Amino acid sequence: MGWINVQVVYNTVMKAEIISVGTELLVGSTLDTNSRFLSQKLAETSLDVYHRATVGDNVERIVSALELAASRSDLIITSGGLGPTEDDVTARSLARFLGRDMIYHRPTAKFIESRFKMRSLRINRLTLRQCYVPKDAVIFPNLKGTAPGILCRQRVRGRDLTVLLLPGPPRELEPMFMKDALPYLIRTLKIQKGHFVTRAVRIAGLLETQVARRVGPLLKMRPPTTVGIYAKPGEVELKIMAKAASASIAVKAADRIERLIRKKFGRHVYGTDSDTLAGAVGALLNRRHANLATAESCTGGLISHMITQVPGSSKYFLGGVLAYDNGVKTGLLAVSENTLSLKGAVSPEVARQMAAGARRKFKADYAIASTGIAGPGGGTRHKPVGRVYIAIAGPKSIFVKGFIFLGTRAEVKFSAAQQALNLLRMKLL
Amino acid sequence: MGWINVQVVYNTVMKAEIISVGTELLVGSTLDTNSRFLSQKLAETSLDVYHRATVGDNVERIVSALELAASRSDLIITSGGLGPTEDDVTARSLARFLGRDMIYHRPTAKFIESRFKMRSLRINRLTLRQCYVPKDAVIFPNLKGTAPGILCRQRVRGRDLTVLLLPGPPRELEPMFMKDALPYLIRTLKIQKGHFVTRAVRIAGLLETQVARRVGPLLKMRPPTTVGIYAKPGEVELKIMAKAASASIAVKAADRIERLIRKKFGRHVYGTDSDTLAGAVGALLNRRHANLATAESCTGGLISHMITQVPGSSKYFLGGVLAYDNGVKTGLLAVSENTLSLKGAVSPEVARQMAAGARRKFKADYAIASTGIAGPGGGTRHKPVGRVYIAIAGPKSIFVKGFIFLGTRAEVKFSAAQQALNLLRMKLL
Repeated sequence: MGWINVQVVYNTVMKAEIISVGTELLVGSTLDTNSRFLSQKLAETSLDVYHRATVGDNVERIVSALELAASRSDLIITSGGLGPTEDDVTARSLARFLGRDMIYHRPTAKFIESRFKMRSLRINRLTLRQCYVPKDAVIFPNLKGTAPGILCRQRVRGRDLTVLLLPGPPRELEPMFMKDALPYLIRTLKIQKGHFVTRAVRIAGLLETQVARRVGPLLKMRPPTTVGIYAKPGEVELKIMAKAASASIAVKAADRIERLIRKKFGRHVYGTDSDTLAGAVGALLNRRHANLATAESCTGGLISHMITQVPGSSKYFLGGVLAYDNGVKTGLLAVSENTLSLKGAVSPEVARQMAAGARRKFKADYAIASTGIAGPGGGTRHKPVGRVYIAIAGPKSIFVKGFIFLGTRAEVKFSAAQQALNLLRMKLL
Repeated sequence: MGWINVQVVYNTVMKAEIISVGTELLVGSTLDTNSRFLSQKLAETSLDVYHRATVGDNVERIVSALELAASRSDLIITSGGLGPTEDDVTARSLARFLGRDMIYHRPTAKFIESRFKMRSLRINRLTLRQCYVPKDAVIFPNLKGTAPGILCRQRVRGRDLTVLLLPGPPRELEPMFMKDALPYLIRTLKIQKGHFVTRAVRIAGLLETQVARRVGPLLKMRPPTTVGIYAKPGEVELKIMAKAASASIAVKAADRIERLIRKKFGRHVYGTDSDTLAGAVGALLNRRHANLATAESCTGGLISHMITQVPGSSKYFLGGVLAYDNGVKTGLLAVSENTLSLKGAVSPEVARQMAAGARRKFKADYAIASTGIAGPGGGTRHKPVGRVYIAIAGPKSIFVKGFIFLGTRAEVKFSAAQQALNLLRMKLL
């Protein structure tokens, strides 16, 4: 059905290739997120990427990389090496590869000067080095920095080659690519957009192996529609990828798989793509016109931080108490000193009293409490590092659940906060 | 001095090249952190990496990539494509490239079987596909997964070539490389380790342009010792990279530059490498035997979260109040209702009263308070999104500073939290 057409369409698609330029990448001091960003956007634009390469700031090696890429691809996109210093040689390398001169681009100089004036900065000669570009290039001004984007089209070895040079800093590259360069490419190369859909379905409260076992056959699907499984801290992600001859067919294919997954996992599915557990909790609280308070010990503010990352969380989040010291647990949350000395701060009883105390203190409908040993110190044989109790108090009842989380201090805090939010979510459902 | 020797030594060094295998990389659904990890470790081992490449799970393209790499490098390290599914073709591609047969590796099968038994899992035929490896390979067992690492040495076009295949998941690749593969390479290739030092000097409270202006000539240094400048959210990083013929010379070169930077920026330097502002604050509080409380509104728990990421923070962090709702500001922190209605919750006066209230409530030596508009909603002409007041209360005085932060909700929260920690740090110095 339909898929056969899809394959045919895809065989006629342009090939694109990404070259990351920068010695800082090759020594590992910078993580190359630009390649991933460009790969995603090219895939969504239905351009096939078969190769990516990384080279240092060196004219010979950049020219070699361009030659190799031009022998097998129609579109080459580079990132990095457009800045003002002597190490920045990408534009010069492209000029040499295409056999063009470098020219001084007055509009870019004017643009940079006007932006410097606005910020009362004095322009220097280094900055103006960035105004030299290969002759007959299309220029994309840099709204977040200084180095402009550069695009050249030329017939090379019988192929209509397009080369796009983008600046290295992601906050300059990303808007320039999305707002100017990609629309230009789509227009001039007559690319049809939107035939590739990816969707992450997010599952909380189950282990990767539990998810893998239940989802079995889906993981064996072959293109054009595939499903991958990824274990993330505190959750499991099922990633649907669907390719099709039209955007609507691809979306329908992804929808169909998402429905299958939701049927299998029910309320364990908390959202898709950029959804967060805190966002899901917020939506449920809003729907019930209910509000929330926190009482955090071992999570140290992380649960509240996650809750308040959600825009509009001030509607339902009243506040909380960070009860790190035991005096705060008794003083502000009315945890009994007797329970503290008999059971210890890391106990289900104290978690329960913290949640009850926070709910009363803030006159909240719901309260979350955490107490535990985040490590690396403080563990004992009976209460090892990673032992955490989470309590959820609601209008009718309180419940407590104990966990043992593995990992570093940061991982224990993160897992505990995710589980706390998921327990509240399950209670609200 | 000495540098001339260094250069000579470095010209004799082996060239290494990294190939990442995986279609999921080329469509951007996975971020390639393996390349960065391997780049860092190879740089620290004084192996030069001039090229990195990424190809999909395709025999022809993997063989081409190996051919290209073998034409210019002595050591090729690949990651990915060793798993049990039909897409995993890296081992087969290497066998074809080297003209070797694939053989069934019994010790690997035994090893996988014993690990499955321990976890009461049944082994299936797919899993055993991972036991096929090129003939005469050195095998590194996978302690965190199933696919073994594979190393082959062979004379190719007059060059002693070493190819190492590593599994794709970072939690399998990283320990296998560090514990088994890298020591093996160092031993058999007679690599001398430890001649490359990188050090990040962390500066808070200054803009990138202010740092760049003062540090001028350092940024123009040429190898073997260079300094790069990187603007990070809420701080600026100066990255020193020093190469030398011995580890001690490289460390001395980095030390010398670090001293120069510290002399220029004084107390604006808060640490190096993995140091954090919260860690610096913690060390200062420990030294003074002082403790700390927080009163967070717009930062919503993030300041406390950062403080409690530091192991041992329970020694000096008493706790805090998340005063999201105004009722919490008056009820728990004794902010005057009068001030709230006259000046509004986002005002220097309320920040000051929050800090004073938290200090009293927790009987703390120091208190940090934040109030502001994190956005994206809630801004007005007089109080735009990003307007934040931070107050620091100490034993003798309270001070308040106002900021306007740009960016998303998450960025405003992060910048505000960093500035708050830095203000406390400056007060403690």
